Order: sequence, then C-alpha cells, then structure tokens
Amino acid sequence: MRPSGRAPDQMRAITIEPRFTKHAEGSVLIGFGDTKVLVTASVEERVPPFLRGRGEGWVTAEYGMLPRATNTRNSREAAKGKQSGRTQEIQRLIGRSLRAVTDLKMLGERQITLDCDVIQADGGTRTASISGAWVALRLAIDGLLAEGKLTADPLTQKVAAVSCGIHQGTPVLDLDYIEDSAADADANFVLLENGNIAEAQATAEGATYDEEALLRLLRLARIGCGEIFAAQAKAVAK
Amino acid sequence: MRPSGRAPDQMRAITIEPRFTKHAEGSVLIGFGDTKVLVTASVEERVPPFLRGRGEGWVTAEYGMLPRATNTRNSREAAKGKQSGRTQEIQRLIGRSLRAVTDLKMLGERQITLDCDVIQADGGTRTASISGAWVALRLAIDGLLAEGKLTADPLTQKVAAVSCGIHQGTPVLDLDYIEDSAADADANFVLLENGNIAEAQATAEGATYDEEALLRLLRLARIGCGEIFAAQAKAVAK
Amino acid sequence: MRPSGRAPDQMRAITIEPRFTKHAEGSVLIGFGDTKVLVTASVEERVPPFLRGRGEGWVTAEYGMLPRATNTRNSREAAKGKQSGRTQEIQRLIGRSLRAVTDLKMLGERQITLDCDVIQADGGTRTASISGAWVALRLAIDGLLAEGKLTADPLTQKVAAVSCGIHQGTPVLDLDYIEDSAADADANFVLLENGNIAEAQATAEGATYDEEALLRLLRLARIGCGEIFAAQAKAVAK
Amino acid sequence: MRPSGRAPDQMRAITIEPRFTKHAEGSVLIGFGDTKVLVTASVEERVPPFLRGRGEGWVTAEYGMLPRATNTRNSREAAKGKQSGRTQEIQRLIGRSLRAVTDLKMLGERQITLDCDVIQADGGTRTASISGAWVALRLAIDGLLAEGKLTADPLTQKVAAVSCGIHQGTPVLDLDYIEDSAADADANFVLLENGNIAEAQATAEGATYDEEALLRLLRLARIGCGEIFAAQAKAVAK
Amino acid sequence: MRPSGRAPDQMRAITIEPRFTKHAEGSVLIGFGDTKVLVTASVEERVPPFLRGRGEGWVTAEYGMLPRATNTRNSREAAKGKQSGRTQEIQRLIGRSLRAVTDLKMLGERQITLDCDVIQADGGTRTASISGAWVALRLAIDGLLAEGKLTADPLTQKVAAVSCGIHQGTPVLDLDYIEDSAADADANFVLLENGNIAEAQATAEGATYDEEALLRLLRLARIGCGEIFAAQAKAVAK
Amino acid sequence: MRPSGRAPDQMRAITIEPRFTKHAEGSVLIGFGDTKVLVTASVEERVPPFLRGRGEGWVTAEYGMLPRATNTRNSREAAKGKQSGRTQEIQRLIGRSLRAVTDLKMLGERQITLDCDVIQADGGTRTASISGAWVALRLAIDGLLAEGKLTADPLTQKVAAVSCGIHQGTPVLDLDYIEDSAADADANFVLLENGNIAEAQATAEGATYDEEALLRLLRLARIGCGEIFAAQAKAVAK
Repeated sequence: MRPSGRAPDQMRAITIEPRFTKHAEGSVLIGFGDTKVLVTASVEERVPPFLRGRGEGWVTAEYGMLPRATNTRNSREAAKGKQSGRTQEIQRLIGRSLRAVTDLKMLGERQITLDCDVIQADGGTRTASISGAWVALRLAIDGLLAEGKLTADPLTQKVAAVSCGIHQGTPVLDLDYIEDSAADADANFVLLENGNIAEAQATAEGATYDEEALLRLLRLARIGCGEIFAAQAKAVAK
Repeated sequence: MRPSGRAPDQMRAITIEPRFTKHAEGSVLIGFGDTKVLVTASVEERVPPFLRGRGEGWVTAEYGMLPRATNTRNSREAAKGKQSGRTQEIQRLIGRSLRAVTDLKMLGERQITLDCDVIQADGGTRTASISGAWVALRLAIDGLLAEGKLTADPLTQKVAAVSCGIHQGTPVLDLDYIEDSAADADANFVLLENGNIAEAQATAEGATYDEEALLRLLRLARIGCGEIFAAQAKAVAK
Repeated sequence: MRPSGRAPDQMRAITIEPRFTKHAEGSVLIGFGDTKVLVTASVEERVPPFLRGRGEGWVTAEYGMLPRATNTRNSREAAKGKQSGRTQEIQRLIGRSLRAVTDLKMLGERQITLDCDVIQADGGTRTASISGAWVALRLAIDGLLAEGKLTADPLTQKVAAVSCGIHQGTPVLDLDYIEDSAADADANFVLLENGNIAEAQATAEGATYDEEALLRLLRLARIGCGEIFAAQAKAVAK
Repeated sequence: MRPSGRAPDQMRAITIEPRFTKHAEGSVLIGFGDTKVLVTASVEERVPPFLRGRGEGWVTAEYGMLPRATNTRNSREAAKGKQSGRTQEIQRLIGRSLRAVTDLKMLGERQITLDCDVIQADGGTRTASISGAWVALRLAIDGLLAEGKLTADPLTQKVAAVSCGIHQGTPVLDLDYIEDSAADADANFVLLENGNIAEAQATAEGATYDEEALLRLLRLARIGCGEIFAAQAKAVAK
Repeated sequence: MRPSGRAPDQMRAITIEPRFTKHAEGSVLIGFGDTKVLVTASVEERVPPFLRGRGEGWVTAEYGMLPRATNTRNSREAAKGKQSGRTQEIQRLIGRSLRAVTDLKMLGERQITLDCDVIQADGGTRTASISGAWVALRLAIDGLLAEGKLTADPLTQKVAAVSCGIHQGTPVLDLDYIEDSAADADANFVLLENGNIAEAQATAEGATYDEEALLRLLRLARIGCGEIFAAQAKAVAK
Repeated sequence: MRPSGRAPDQMRAITIEPRFTKHAEGSVLIGFGDTKVLVTASVEERVPPFLRGRGEGWVTAEYGMLPRATNTRNSREAAKGKQSGRTQEIQRLIGRSLRAVTDLKMLGERQITLDCDVIQADGGTRTASISGAWVALRLAIDGLLAEGKLTADPLTQKVAAVSCGIHQGTPVLDLDYIEDSAADADANFVLLENGNIAEAQATAEGATYDEEALLRLLRLARIGCGEIFAAQAKAVAK
C-alpha cells in the first residue's frame, strides 16, 4: 500500500495552467499533485558564443527552488552565491530533454531559455519541470510561428518525464516526497510521444536492482508519460 | 492622465490569497495589479549568532525575482553567484519594516524568515512584498499562538507599504512599471495602521522635489495603505 | 543633553582638505568631527556598456571602510570576497545624489567615479561621503574645463547631505556614533543648494515616528546642509 | 568499423597500478586505453555534520581534470572559482556508486574521500574513476583492517563502471573520445559483481533510442565490467 | 642620473605620523616620498583556530590599495570579489616580517592584525607598509604593557624594509614608480636592526643579475634601513 | 646529520620523464626524490588582452596540488572556490622564471601556459615545477620550430630552481618536507645556466640570517642547479 493510497501504476493529478504569467513568450504552472512548478520560456534573438555564426539555435534550461518550497526552509542559492550540484544536474537534464525534440537548425540563430522554478515541492520536481517546459516551449514557438519569425515548426514531437521507483519492494509510478525519501531505487525517464527514450536514469539509493526491475520501471514510466502527453495536448489546445 | 487610466490617488486592484503554499508556517500570494509576489514565513527555533542567549527573537527577509518576472529576462542571481545591490537593499527594507511591528522579546528565541519571491513584476514589488509579508507573518504567529508556543501576541499592529511618485508633474499613487520608468521622483512609504511612519524613502530620479511634494506623496501613501490594511484584515480573517 | 554636549541643531566641525592626494583628477579629505572620508574623483573617457553610443556620460560611486576605521575591527570586504548589503546601498545612494546635480548630456561620453573610503568612522559616513564627493567632482570637472575637454559646466549646483535623528525624544542634527546607536529614528537627507530634495530616507530603528517629526528632521537637515554648502564653497575657492 | 579498429564489444586495455602515490591510505592509477585517472582514498576520523553522532560513516568523492588532460586546454576550475555542473554531476555519481557497496554502519564514524583526478582524457573518465575508486577504497579499508581500526569488512562486493553508446547505428562498448563525440546515445552503467545495477544512465545525444537498444547497451556493459572486475581482483591481490 | 635627481644611495623623505587614527590600538601614516600608507594595529584577545590552546599569539597583516592610489584607477578588490595574487603575496610578506621580531609565546593568546592601506602609491608600498607596521605594532604593544596585559615586551627589535633595483645599469636605493617600471631587477630586503636579514627577494624583470649585483643591492638596503630605523625610533619616542 | 642521511650539498634523485602525457605540446613528469610534478606546456595562438596587437608573446604558469599529494588531505581549491595566496605566489614565480629565458618578441603573438600539478609532495614543489617547466617549454618550442611556426629559437638558455635552507644550524641543499618544516631559513633560487640569477628569495622562518649565510645558500643552489641542468639536457636529448 502506498502512503498516498494510490495504486502502483497511478499518477497523481496532473494540472497544467498555460499562460500563467504575462511577460514570457511561453509560460505554464504545472502540478503533479502537490508539486507545483512555474516554467517560463524566454526567446532571445542571439545564441551563446559557441554557436555564433552557425545558423543554429539553442534551447537551454535553468532550475531553482524557492527557499520554502520544501518542508523545511533551504538556504537561497543566490544568497549562498552558488548553485548546488543537484541544481546544476537537473538543469542540464531539462535542457538536454527539450533539445531532444527540437530541430536546432530550423530554430535559427535564437535561444529559448526555460526557467523552471519550483513553487511547492512534493517529489518529482525535475520530471514536472521537463513536462511543463515542453508546454512553455510549444507556446513560445507557436508565437514565433504566428509572428512569422519561423515558417516551419522546429518542435518535432512531445516529450514528457516521470519518476518511478522501488518502494518497499514494489515498483511504483510518480513518487511523492514520502516515497522518494524511502525508495530503494529511484528512476527518472524522459520519453518521447513515439515511444523512444531520451534519457533513462535509475539510481540505487537503498538497494541495487536487477534488469527485470529496470524494465518494470520503464513500463510504469510509459503509463505515466501517456497521461502527461494527453494533459499537454489539452493544455496547448486551449 | 495616467497610462493605466487610473485617478492619481487610485490604487491598482489588491488581491491577497492567504495559505497559497502548504509547507510554510505562513504564506500568501499578494497582487498589486499585475505585480504578483509569493511570500512565505518560515519559523525556526534558533536565532542568528549575534542574538544567541539574549532571549530575543528575530524577523528577517529575503527577496528574489524570478528571471522572467519582468518584460525581458534577467540573469538568475543564483547563477551569477551574487545578489545585486538592489536585491540586498530591498530585503533589508522588508526586514526592518516587519521588525517595526514585532516585539522581539515577546517572540522569544526564534527566527521568522520572510521569503518574498516576485512571480510577475509590474512596479511596486518591494511594497507588495512588505504588505504581503505582514499577512504571512500574521499567519505564522497565529500558528505559534494556536500551538501554545507563544502565549501572547508579539505582533503589535499592521504594517503596509506603497509606492508613490511624481509622474509628468502630478503626484500619483501606486506606480506601475510604465509610470515608474518615467517618474521624476519615486517614493516608498512604510506606514503603520496607527498612522506612524516606519520608513520614508523619496528619491529624485529625473528631477528633485520640494517639501510640499514630499508631503503630498505621503498623503497619497496614507490613502493607499488604508486600502491595504483593509485587504490584509480581510485576508487573515478567512 | 547630547553625549557630545552639542545643541540639538549643532553640526560637528566640518573640515575639508581639497587635493588631498596627487593622482586623482579630484580629491578631498572631508571630516564631520571624527568621521574622516577620503574621496577621489577619477575621470575615464568611456562609459558603461548600457550607455555606449548615446552621447551621455555617467557619474558613479564606490564606498569602502578601512577595516579599523571603526571601534572594533571589521573584516576586510576584499578578503571576504563580497561587499555587504550596507556598502552597496550606500554607494548606490552616493551615485544617485551626485547625478542629481550633473547634466549627463553635457558631460559627454565619459565616466567619473567617486571613490569614498572611510579612514575613520564616528557616524555619518555616507553623508560626509556625499558632501565630500561634490568637492572632488567639482575639482575634476574644473580640470576638464581648464583642459578644454568640456566647454560648458555640467555641474548644475551644490549637493550636500547630513544625518538627523530622534535621540531620547529630541530631534538632533548630525548624529555621531554614540547617538546613532541609540537613536529611535535615523534619517539621511540629500539636499540641493536651491532647497530641493534629492533624497529623503527616514527609518524607524527603535520607534516609529509621525509626520511632524519627519518635518522637524528635514528642517534640521536644512540647517546642517547650509553649513556644508558654505564649507564646500570655501574649499573649492582655494 | 570503430575508429580504433576494436570490435563492438571490445574494451580498451585496462591497466591498474595500485599504490601509485605514497601518502594516501589507498591509491591507484587506472587506465582505460589512453584515459588515465589517479585515484586516492583518504581516511578521516570524522564525518560530515549531517551524520555526526549517528555511529555511521560516509564515502564521498571529488573529481577534477588537469587543465591539459584534454586535446585543447580547459581553464583550471580553481582559477575560475567554481566547479562546472559536469564536474559536480560526476563526483556525485562516483560517491553514490561506492556507497552502494559499502556498509556505512560497519565503517563507523569515519569518512573516506575518493579524489579522482584525470591525468589524461580519452573518453570514459567517470567510469574509469569509479572502477579505480573501488581499488583505492579496497586498499584503504584493508589498511584499516590491518591496523585493527576495523574488525569486519564494510566493503560488500566489487563495483565497476563502463560507458557504452550507439555509434553510427551500432551499440559499442567503452567509447573513446572520437566515438563519444559522435555517438547518438551515450550510456554509463555502474554494475556490481553479483550482476545488480547501481546506476544506469542512458542519454540521447544525437538520436533517441528504444528499449531494445537500452538492453543491448546494458549487455555490453556486463561484458566490460566483467573484465574490470578481473583487473580489480588482480590489482588488489598484488 | 635618477629621474628624481636623487643620488643612487639616497632615500626619499621618510615621514612618520604616529597615532594617525583614533580607534586602533596602534596607528601610523608612513610616507616614503609620495608613497603614503596608513597602518593600523588591531589587538584581539583570541587567536586563529590553528593556534588555539597553545598559549601562543599571532601577528598577521592585510594589505589593500585604494582604487585611485595609483595613476590610473584600479578596480576595487572588494567589488571584484577577490584579492589579487599580488595583494596576497604582499600581505603574507608583511606578516612574516613582523613575526620575525615578535616572540609569539610572550605575546600570549592574542592576535594583532596590521592593516596596511595605501592611500597614495609611488613605488615601494610593501616596504613602507612593513616599516610603518613596526611602528603601529610597537604602539599597540606599548598599550598592552601600559594596561598591564603584558608584563614583558614581546617585540625583540626593530624591523624595516626597503626596495632597491638596477636601473639603467646602476644599483639604486628606494625606487619610485618611474624607476620601478623600468628597472632590470627589483629587490626588497627586510632587515633587522642587528643587521640580520628576515627576507631577501630579488627578481629579474628585464635582465638577470649576478651575485655581485645582489650584494650591492643588499648594501644599499642597509643604508636605507638605517635611516628608517632612526625615523621609527623618533616616531615612537613622541 | 640530515633526516634523509644526505650530505649537506647532496640533491635528491632527479628524475625527468619527458612526453608523459599525449595531448600537450610539451609535457614532463619531474621528480626531486618523492616530490613528483606533472608539467604540461599548452600553446595557444592568441595572447592576453594587455598584449594584443603588439607582436609579442607570453609565457605564463598555473600551479595546483592534488588534494592528497600531501600527508594529510587538503581541500580542493576548485571546491573551495579560490586559489590560496601560496598557490598564486608560486604560479607567479614560475611564470616570471620562464619568461626570464624567453625572448617574447621572437615567440610572436602566441601564449604558452605551463600547468604544474603536484602529484606527490615532499618539499620543493615550486622548484621542481620551474625545473620541469623548462623541459615542457623546450619540447613545445621544439614542436613549433619543427612545424615551421617559429623559424628561430626564442628560448635563450636553461633555467632551473632549487630550495636551500638552514637546518639545525647547517646550510643544506634541496630540503625535503621534514627539513622544510623545521628549517630556520628557507630559500629558493632560480638560476640560469650562465650563472646569472633570475630570482632569489630567502625567508627567515625560525631565525633570521646574515649575509654570509645568504651567500652559502646561493653556493649550494649553484651545485643543485648544475645537476638539474644536466638532467634537463639529457631529458630533451631523448
């Protein structure tokens, strides 16, 4: 029995509020249960130095957690003067995941930055960030298409992410904080709508796992991402 | 005529959503028009080193702006590795303002940190932060009273803040971003419900001002803070 | 009775030694009693990136305190690796104050940096810095005029600053350190010779204050700045 | 055909020189072909603050690359003043991998730090680091057992790591730099001698991949880790 | 002929104003010609962690240069967020030099920090700092003796320092900035009153030098330090 | 009697392995007894900003010590976020020493960076670094000559460095760590093959020294550098 009473393959409620803020080219407040992440997409008509003059664009991400998004207050990274290793690892993952579905040549020499800020945390903040970032990116690119700055769509398909883990011997989908803290293994899968995998990361926390378990976690992730794809579709159709 | 069509002494709509997040001892989403600030109050049962063993508490604040709260994206302070002078100035002001209505001896050896994070900016983020911080602090202290950790209320009265300025020769209340960028003088007043002043800051941006103008700005601030006090009362009564 | 035996509206001795150092385009050692600040004005024939190509100049300030300027030694900011919030707040105030009396268009594409370094502190270091910075700026601009780099004077009038506060219930002028530590309210006024206000900041430290008190503090500041304007005039006439 | 002429399931030469330096409690120079990593294990009789007084030990890792370990010189992280996101991600992975085979309760209140410094890089520096770190850790723990500081062995089994990837459509084992730069997908597996998985990370670089590919990469990793386990056994037997 | 018209073995005017500031336990403004350094000695009744509980004291130094001490403005180290290599090298040298004449056991568990801040620079700032630091230290220790905190004098003798160099083929004493910029070799000697050497550093800038030149520079330094010892004696006798 | 049993004028074994790593234009592993330093020379076809457009090259150095090169582990400078004063002092010395034998005009607008990383430390790491850096630089310049990028040799002669000190009253050559920790005076000499001095630094640690002692240390250094010159010659002849 999961602490939340959910079935092993049951996601938390997915909520997506597109256009949550007014300034960004794309924005969304995504919720996986009590985990709430605000994602904005900012379009800039320039690329980082390593890409200049190559006619290609770039999609990148930054991640942050408000100090009291969690149960006890964490120091503010801006005040400490540096981003933690965890923050950097997550923002690198988000950037890679979105680039996996973007044709950077078609995007042209512009950069889109996805800022993922966790308003409230209850497990799965990085997977909610990726799933929400796709919506923000979709909205920003829709804007570029509408303004005629892009004539063809560089976004090739949907991408979504979800966490899974082995909790008290049972593979379960979409861990909340209580499960995450006690999981033996913890995995994050970034999947494309066509079924392909952009990223698989499965880490033993309390106990190592075997190949069979890895495959079961992947199957759970397919169930969860299916639901997320549906919610993304609905959100951008609004 | 103001760009927004408001009368000179007209505030923007004040919105206050108490208990906006679930983990913090107090939390609120406050809006002054399109300016939206999330404030959380975090209670810790320890005080900073300079106060240890003196039987007194501390109230402090931190301030941040999400990178795309504004019209064009700002670099993330955590990524740059330091907080700007503006950020530090604002968070010092918020802390002082709340301490002006808190009896630190009655609070006992505990610290309450008010995290003010700007979700969307349209002028007046520091004054919305102070006004919202009072609500978050009130809720956190109500919790301490309810739990019996405090037996008497250390919060002496309400505090609120609003900006005023001289825009095209006219003193106006609660500047939005368009007015703020073009104001000749820009003032922030932090007022108590009993009419006293906790902080007055009036800065010449484009043109210096005279004593008469200073007093007219203060009178506008009294009008604005009156409305904020009413909204605060309603929010904490919920 | 004030600890120093001064009357409530009595300034400390104002001492101004122009051309205190030899390399800077303008320099001064200013004293308000035991508070001693060395201010240098450095002219550079370039402006910060945000102003390039606009035909305008810039006036900015930096502030520092020698580690043992105070009664007990403070850590050196260069060794700690960052400037405190207080330092940044003060240097932003000094810069704004001097820009309030400078026609930046007439200055042309050059920057003047006012470095204010506190050699000895006894209260009022920021107001002595502003008052001394005007002298250093005046000398630097006189040099530019003498060399023919400027043909008209961009400095529109004098600016001076002084602190006032409510000490044991009495509004007093030009607080020294002992008074400053115990003041209920503490204000800094930056005034122009024509009577206008460039900046008013009045902060409740121990007790909030009313409108009447604010006005009395302002009147004290007018008395103090009058004396400073006279001292500035004498110093630059040398 | 691989650029190096190796078969798809062929590792590069594995070289392990135990006790490469004299001061550390354990040390090794490990080579996977031209990739050379110096790993030292340092034992300290104290644990990080979050573990104090719990009777448990800690195993952690730091990772660095000499500026000219690579084909073109990289800036020294100490000179830049911060570790890159990549560095932090790698050192977190190394630490987790070694903790997966250490019984921290049996280790007692002491910390072992594994410093992995890349002398020369040609792909696979993180996997060589993990594989070498096990040897350094084994030697350090052997020392603690020999000195009687430990009476039972907290190291439960061997751990090794290897990279695999899809290069020009073919899954290949132990990518060198040329392959790594051009791989469509790039995976790192951390495996235990008993066949279990401590960490699986598979990232799409150029093209996403399917479940079948993930499993083929895992099977290649099993081949590679088998060879590493044998080399580790031989090295610690010396 | 030297640019200043001085003879090769001629020092610039040495000026020493003891007790230049009022807060520090010892203070001095020392001048070697146009080079002016303010040195303060701060006594603290605690020692750095590495010395705690050993019954010994510590003498250390910090060095800084005001941004416009030099001909063109240098960035403020506090604003840049770090001290340059040159600054750190100099402050380490000053600390060592003063420790060479202090019996740290006799000083007891207290630390004296010598802050050397260059008000105006014209070559020889580090040697003026050392020479002035001795005076500030002497005054601070005299105070400790007068207060009865010390019963015996831990300062064993005088220490002074001077620069010498080879300028256009001629060994010269006490280089000013013009000579220093063009010197082939540049040396700093820290000498004791008894003739012993605490530190000798001779660096080839434009051309390497031979043993004979090294000895001639040392002899010039003896002449210069003789004059400094006399000035120090006079200053502390006041 | 020296702890190592060496005669006062006896160097430790000098070992030089040229071309120790494959990517750098020049590389060497140099050993002075148990002190082992890896030096790489990296050629870049650009110069630092202060030299641009002047047709001159630059030779610079960076220095680092692996965390466990020493008997007890030191914090990693990259993790601490800054280089120590000692590190900066050493890398400045190495750079100056190599520039003393390089004709920068002949080198043309390119920079050679010498990275000196201490693999194992037992005293004398800075002098081994300088001595090894000459070999790495020689190899890099030989490469530029062979490729035709240089037509004449900018390296004018050999440079080597060695430490000497006064240990228990006896001047000794090439201090190991045990001697270095207990030496009364500690000197580093950087000598050219023609007998000239590029840098002499002699520091009193426990006791000051006289002119005679300085000269005896210099004579020991001549003996040591003679051996190093021979070893350098042999290494580059391979």
